[in-house]
Amino acid sequence: MAIPHALPGQAVDVRPLGAGLAQEKTRALFKSADLEVMRLVLMAGKSLPPHSVPGEITVHCLEGSLVVTAEGRSHALGADQLLYLAGGVMHDVTAVEDSSALVTIALRR
Amino acid sequence: MAIPHALPGQAVDVRPLGAGLAQEKTRALFKSADLEVMRLVLMAGKSLPPHSVPGEITVHCLEGSLVVTAEGRSHALGADQLLYLAGGVMHDVTAVEDSSALVTIALRR
Repeated sequence: MAIPHALPGQAVDVRPLGAGLAQEKTRALFKSADLEVMRLVLMAGKSLPPHSVPGEITVHCLEGSLVVTAEGRSHALGADQLLYLAGGVMHDVTAVEDSSALVTIALRR
Repeated sequence: MAIPHALPGQAVDVRPLGAGLAQEKTRALFKSADLEVMRLVLMAGKSLPPHSVPGEITVHCLEGSLVVTAEGRSHALGADQLLYLAGGVMHDVTAVEDSSALVTIALRR
């Protein structure tokens, strides 16, 4: 069943999933006029293939360990670390450990 | 001394400040073309007075307990919870406990 997206002002739980991580999938928390926020779930050894979006993004690792590669440089991102990437930049993401992350995308209109 | 803002791809530590919270101040992590991200530090009983920004925002409570009031409704926001508000909405934020939060603002151009 699809999980309904959050409404403005509605608190959404984004705590680490811990032992429940393997049962979760990546899902959008909400998409509105200016922002889209999703929770990325990526198990160890898995990758998101190279892609880009028009607007800037932040990646906030909630648990585990990720490597974000953009413009020929790889950036390690551990739990409780955040990075941002400029809009239009091709990037890929690989999970070193079972991981989840908040991804915030600025939507350009 | 001003702390330099993060560059694209640079991992920024956003773990809870814990016992160090009282020694920290609110500061911007970065401001770029589409997004501004700051870490809000608000001690128990303190408030940000009502204000608005043109673009949408997310507030992600990293520790403590906040109340976000917007459009006549108050929203409790505990650690590891996130909410968003539409752009242009007057809101205020009060700390129930010593708190820090990531605030992401969509910049409208």
